[in-house]
Amino acid sequence: MTVTYSRRVADARLGTFYRLLLRWKGSIYKLLYRELLIFTVMYCIISITYRCVLTEEQRRMFEKLSLYCDQYAQLIPVSFVLGFYVTLVVSRWWGQFESVPWPDRLSALVSGHVRGADEGARLIRRSLMRYANLSGILIYRSVSTAVYKRFPTMSHLVQAGLMTAEELRQLQELPSPHNKFWVPCMWFVSLAMRARSEGRINNDVAMTAILNELNTLRSQCMRLYGYDWISLPLVYTQVVTVAVYSFFLTCLIGRQFLDPAQGYPGHNLDFYLPVFTLLQFFFYVGWLKVAEQLINPFGEDDDDFETNWLVDRNLQVSLLSVDEMYDLVPLVERDKYWD
Amino acid sequence: MTVTYSRRVADARLGTFYRLLLRWKGSIYKLLYRELLIFTVMYCIISITYRCVLTEEQRRMFEKLSLYCDQYAQLIPVSFVLGFYVTLVVSRWWGQFESVPWPDRLSALVSGHVRGADEGARLIRRSLMRYANLSGILIYRSVSTAVYKRFPTMSHLVQAGLMTAEELRQLQELPSPHNKFWVPCMWFVSLAMRARSEGRINNDVAMTAILNELNTLRSQCMRLYGYDWISLPLVYTQVVTVAVYSFFLTCLIGRQFLDPAQGYPGHNLDFYLPVFTLLQFFFYVGWLKVAEQLINPFGEDDDDFETNWLVDRNLQVSLLSVDEMYDLVPLVERDKYWD
Amino acid sequence: MTVTYSRRVADARLGTFYRLLLRWKGSIYKLLYRELLIFTVMYCIISITYRCVLTEEQRRMFEKLSLYCDQYAQLIPVSFVLGFYVTLVVSRWWGQFESVPWPDRLSALVSGHVRGADEGARLIRRSLMRYANLSGILIYRSVSTAVYKRFPTMSHLVQAGLMTAEELRQLQELPSPHNKFWVPCMWFVSLAMRARSEGRINNDVAMTAILNELNTLRSQCMRLYGYDWISLPLVYTQVVTVAVYSFFLTCLIGRQFLDPAQGYPGHNLDFYLPVFTLLQFFFYVGWLKVAEQLINPFGEDDDDFETNWLVDRNLQVSLLSVDEMYDLVPLVERDKYWD
Amino acid sequence: MTVTYSRRVADARLGTFYRLLLRWKGSIYKLLYRELLIFTVMYCIISITYRCVLTEEQRRMFEKLSLYCDQYAQLIPVSFVLGFYVTLVVSRWWGQFESVPWPDRLSALVSGHVRGADEGARLIRRSLMRYANLSGILIYRSVSTAVYKRFPTMSHLVQAGLMTAEELRQLQELPSPHNKFWVPCMWFVSLAMRARSEGRINNDVAMTAILNELNTLRSQCMRLYGYDWISLPLVYTQVVTVAVYSFFLTCLIGRQFLDPAQGYPGHNLDFYLPVFTLLQFFFYVGWLKVAEQLINPFGEDDDDFETNWLVDRNLQVSLLSVDEMYDLVPLVERDKYWD
Amino acid sequence: MTVTYSRRVADARLGTFYRLLLRWKGSIYKLLYRELLIFTVMYCIISITYRCVLTEEQRRMFEKLSLYCDQYAQLIPVSFVLGFYVTLVVSRWWGQFESVPWPDRLSALVSGHVRGADEGARLIRRSLMRYANLSGILIYRSVSTAVYKRFPTMSHLVQAGLMTAEELRQLQELPSPHNKFWVPCMWFVSLAMRARSEGRINNDVAMTAILNELNTLRSQCMRLYGYDWISLPLVYTQVVTVAVYSFFLTCLIGRQFLDPAQGYPGHNLDFYLPVFTLLQFFFYVGWLKVAEQLINPFGEDDDDFETNWLVDRNLQVSLLSVDEMYDLVPLVERDKYWD
Repeated sequence: MTVTYSRRVADARLGTFYRLLLRWKGSIYKLLYRELLIFTVMYCIISITYRCVLTEEQRRMFEKLSLYCDQYAQLIPVSFVLGFYVTLVVSRWWGQFESVPWPDRLSALVSGHVRGADEGARLIRRSLMRYANLSGILIYRSVSTAVYKRFPTMSHLVQAGLMTAEELRQLQELPSPHNKFWVPCMWFVSLAMRARSEGRINNDVAMTAILNELNTLRSQCMRLYGYDWISLPLVYTQVVTVAVYSFFLTCLIGRQFLDPAQGYPGHNLDFYLPVFTLLQFFFYVGWLKVAEQLINPFGEDDDDFETNWLVDRNLQVSLLSVDEMYDLVPLVERDKYWD
Repeated sequence: MTVTYSRRVADARLGTFYRLLLRWKGSIYKLLYRELLIFTVMYCIISITYRCVLTEEQRRMFEKLSLYCDQYAQLIPVSFVLGFYVTLVVSRWWGQFESVPWPDRLSALVSGHVRGADEGARLIRRSLMRYANLSGILIYRSVSTAVYKRFPTMSHLVQAGLMTAEELRQLQELPSPHNKFWVPCMWFVSLAMRARSEGRINNDVAMTAILNELNTLRSQCMRLYGYDWISLPLVYTQVVTVAVYSFFLTCLIGRQFLDPAQGYPGHNLDFYLPVFTLLQFFFYVGWLKVAEQLINPFGEDDDDFETNWLVDRNLQVSLLSVDEMYDLVPLVERDKYWD
Repeated sequence: MTVTYSRRVADARLGTFYRLLLRWKGSIYKLLYRELLIFTVMYCIISITYRCVLTEEQRRMFEKLSLYCDQYAQLIPVSFVLGFYVTLVVSRWWGQFESVPWPDRLSALVSGHVRGADEGARLIRRSLMRYANLSGILIYRSVSTAVYKRFPTMSHLVQAGLMTAEELRQLQELPSPHNKFWVPCMWFVSLAMRARSEGRINNDVAMTAILNELNTLRSQCMRLYGYDWISLPLVYTQVVTVAVYSFFLTCLIGRQFLDPAQGYPGHNLDFYLPVFTLLQFFFYVGWLKVAEQLINPFGEDDDDFETNWLVDRNLQVSLLSVDEMYDLVPLVERDKYWD
Repeated sequence: MTVTYSRRVADARLGTFYRLLLRWKGSIYKLLYRELLIFTVMYCIISITYRCVLTEEQRRMFEKLSLYCDQYAQLIPVSFVLGFYVTLVVSRWWGQFESVPWPDRLSALVSGHVRGADEGARLIRRSLMRYANLSGILIYRSVSTAVYKRFPTMSHLVQAGLMTAEELRQLQELPSPHNKFWVPCMWFVSLAMRARSEGRINNDVAMTAILNELNTLRSQCMRLYGYDWISLPLVYTQVVTVAVYSFFLTCLIGRQFLDPAQGYPGHNLDFYLPVFTLLQFFFYVGWLKVAEQLINPFGEDDDDFETNWLVDRNLQVSLLSVDEMYDLVPLVERDKYWD
Repeated sequence: MTVTYSRRVADARLGTFYRLLLRWKGSIYKLLYRELLIFTVMYCIISITYRCVLTEEQRRMFEKLSLYCDQYAQLIPVSFVLGFYVTLVVSRWWGQFESVPWPDRLSALVSGHVRGADEGARLIRRSLMRYANLSGILIYRSVSTAVYKRFPTMSHLVQAGLMTAEELRQLQELPSPHNKFWVPCMWFVSLAMRARSEGRINNDVAMTAILNELNTLRSQCMRLYGYDWISLPLVYTQVVTVAVYSFFLTCLIGRQFLDPAQGYPGHNLDFYLPVFTLLQFFFYVGWLKVAEQLINPFGEDDDDFETNWLVDRNLQVSLLSVDEMYDLVPLVERDKYWD
């Protein structure tokens, strides 16, 4: 359930972005409130311990430790590494969106070039598009948890009408341990060649254009597969996560309000809750959450791509294009600007 | 009403950019003056309260708070996150401009390859281009508030001569809940195939080239649709907005001029209005406004793309290309450099 | 008059970049010396006022102000915003260079596929290339001040032999308020189709390839047009300019040498001229000048693209390619490595 | 053995990234523990020397040195240069992944267009795909240590069935000192032309499409070769490495806990082990390790591309596509949504 | 003589990058030692002057100056501007590598489509490839100092067998002041058309594919030419160079060890040589050297592209492809995985 807010920010007016702050669904608050709560609770526990449990001497010790932590927390360049890391994650996220296969181009060619209104031709056109869609769905099953939950077994695909029992049998009989998303593409090729030799596709240029479009779809499927297979190096993600979390662990101690009576510089006020540290937490961990949400956009986050919608939309549009709309033109008449 | 100033900055001379500061339309002042006013008013209220309302003891308390806020405001790395965020928004903005469909390439092919000067051929050529334009307009209606206001219902498209009543009927009869911008593309395919079988398009290579060009247009429409559908994650926008606004809320207190008599370091002057904080406000919120303006370039900001102009221009150029200019060549004569 | 220095920096040796500092043409000194002068003069006026005009008490006041300005000048993150802004401008600048239309590819196809050595064929080939060049020149006239100055009216194009009087008449008669750079492209299409039907172009694949190449040229023209139409948002440029200039206005006061006798920290030396502030000015405003120079590379700066040279070169190479060099092959003989 | 963790981060929940911290394989700990150990040991040696070996006077000297080092360590802008460098390495890393040749597109065309179910046709199809795969493998042998170890000599390729003895002989007889990965491509061309002249490929458009696809594969091989040949300039890598290592050498001295009794500012606590310096080490050297791991993704790191898997998968899928699946279509029947 | 070290960094192990530090060829030391030496000598001269030449009073003056310089040197944001500048240079450097024309794709098409084993056909194929290579070499002569030194006059090309005397004559007779790298491309077109009309190329699709591939080569030549013509704006390079050098001129004074007896803060140690300033020099000037080396990768630096090797390799591979390997297929036999 992708969160779309383009229309709300169409115009830059007073408080355009301000209004976005009041949403819950897909918002930073929803993503972050648990972490913020945990941080606050831990902060309070330490604070109470310092104030009520420790002996006088232990307090002095703790104060030294706190000052030390506060001073060195600045050595961790959180914002720098987060900036580079999130930029990288965002560019991969958009790269994945651009790799999503849309069968629209292919369906235009199949509808145009596979001629005939008889059942045989309809069968071929519908099967071709079904194969093309099936390829995408097989990839989605392997990259998207949402689609996988919808079709936990291959039989679910048969039930949903995305493939026939016979097709499933052939697919499973193929002796290969690797992902078989490409098999429907090969069926497409064979069926298209058959249509060509039967003359339903009546010229070689069209044939080549269709196969080329199919290959484009296939390449996009492979790119999705590649994004899934080659994650951002674990090492990078770990370094960033450690940086952010160790920064805030340090803050738990270093940002405690120390006894104003001791006269430590910058410690002459006692607010009990460190508003600015919480804000910083909100800010840095929120930035990290952007990465967490985008690093795999095929999950079920509020902001992930709606793969199940894609599956339905693509199948419907494909079949409509090549069947109901085959050879269909509204009455061609003079337009308003004629002469 | 895009603000074009390329010509004013053609040469880098003394004060090239300086002159740009004196414009109002599309300027940062126009975008920002309300926010700046609100900030100033709030600052003054707090300032007056501090000076005239608070008791002596409350003032000392406020001063501590102010120093505390001033010190911690620096913890918010506003410029860093704004830099990365605005860069991202700008790259999406240009990506959207590059996805705007121009029917020029298609009209060249239709004009060249659909032969015949009789009414039938003219009807076909004009209808083909009308369909291609219609596809784009249907997308614009869903992404651009300006176009949507111009054509609030589909009937407005009929009135404007962009589609016929019959076409509207067929479009609406199609049983699909999804955006139907692709339907005119399918009409295009069917009509082009008909022209091919009637021999008006006389070879398969041209046919394939035309369909390929149509598919390019369709892909661009889909990319616009994709940009609209998959907004920049709300979380990122929220994090940035919160960072900027919380920074200035903090400044409201932390940048107050404190009583010079108290001798706080850096507080030995009293200007009543904090020029540099206002400048910083101008600067950071201005940067954020760049993002606000570009995040959806299909609105009605001074600097948004003029989609309505695009609609008119594209339709006119398309029809001129395939009709008035069909088979039209000026007298071919020797040029000046002949031999 | 683009400044090319690639050859001077071919090898990284001692002082490779150092030698570049000694040039005047296209240099930062030439661009900057006026601004630098103005800044210095203003600095001196303030300095003299402080030293000679103000009373003792006013001086103390001024000193406070100066320290205040110096302290807060650091709040303006000039380098950060300049870094991002200039990067953006540079990438647009190169994008514009890559959009410059070169008719070379088209001329190879026209020369190869439009057969015949008679005057008719020569006329067609030359006219085709002239149309393609004309399209580019019409765009240049609208984006480049240099080309516009060279051809202030369309009649200048006729005089220069880039179009015939008849062509101009037809162009002007076309009833459209929009830029008409695309009209010669349509003439190209019509003339090419005529050549095809006369058999001078003897196959459809070649015909389609030629039209495709023409469309590529046309797209590049449109991209140039787009870069000109959709400037970088004015708001962004204004924010950057205000940031840089306000920073230096602040420095005018904040970087004054204060009376060493007063013992302000960091003010125990009096150099009269603030070398480092001038260096900073040189540096930051220089960086901004990079942006000023590149934001519209079609002007007449030392470093702008030489559009007039492009016009001449492209026309000459086009005509040579399709006429003098038509069907010309040097004697084909065995090369040195034969067997 | 690429480390894939996409599925674990599908949803942004509480502690999504946190769980990634607990892995060993491909983790930062595995990459870093030796460096961290060495650093800690060296730190301890210096610490013990300071505490137990030095005389009182030498200690005072050492303390001065330590303070000096601590102060100047900040002059080394490690995080800045690491950010830019790692971003560059990551973009090359992904560029290399996108250059990996997949024969899938080619196998679709070969399977479709090379007609015939007899042994001759099967031989041709299988040989064509074997050649295409062989080209990739020859490149892998020169860029990937893993593939090179698997096939240390060309004879291993023959044994593995990737080429025949006769092919090896011809390859070796070719008098050229340069990498011969392109030779199988030329065999492919010759064999395909033979199939065309025998009529097994029955039209020129298909022939051209096949050769085009082959050339795409070849270009990708060349890009891999280019990435291998043109490394990131050694100078850049050295600068970054020197920056990071010299920073930590400085820290060995500068971050020692000095005798609290001496009252140096910031030195009133003695923890024996500098937790924050170790964290910084973890963080900066970890970032550098990201670069070390990605700079050549064809090695045998945990996170490198599994080239040997690619070799096997591609060969199997290619042969299945053009042989077992040739002309194979499941029974075409009405789908669930028919009417 | 490009420095390739990919294999040495295949695996991220203990000290992977460390080993790279011990190389001399192409190393930062080789590039930098002269600058470093000059800086050190200048530093020493100033140091000696301060210690031995100046009078007591002059020393106090110098100390003030030194502190002043040290304080303001930090105002120059060297690392920031270097980061953006080097990133830009690196991306241009790789863009140039990707523009290097490889005739491999073209030679595959020529070898496949220009049929015939007789001398006439061989002559045509060899000449076509020679023309394609010649175009690239003419460009190299204008952008690469290494190639220019190898072929200082056009006659050297004739001697090297890259063109015939007759071709040189025709090239020189062509009346055009502009770079003539495109002329061999036109010969290619004419010769290919002749081969087509003689039936050696037997279909139009192949013909068009060949011309398209030639045009791709030509475009790449033009891109190289463009990179050479449109250098990075001189202004940008100057700003960066001035920033770095002025920073170190300032350091020459500001980083002197001052008399510890005077008790200036941070000046209680006297090492004679400022290790950290030298490190900083090493680091910043090293970063600038990366830019110096990459800004024109067609020179003769250790790390520049080996254009002469490219010339030789491309010619040999082209001629082998279209001649020795024409119509050559190893015996087609069953592979190991047959059934």
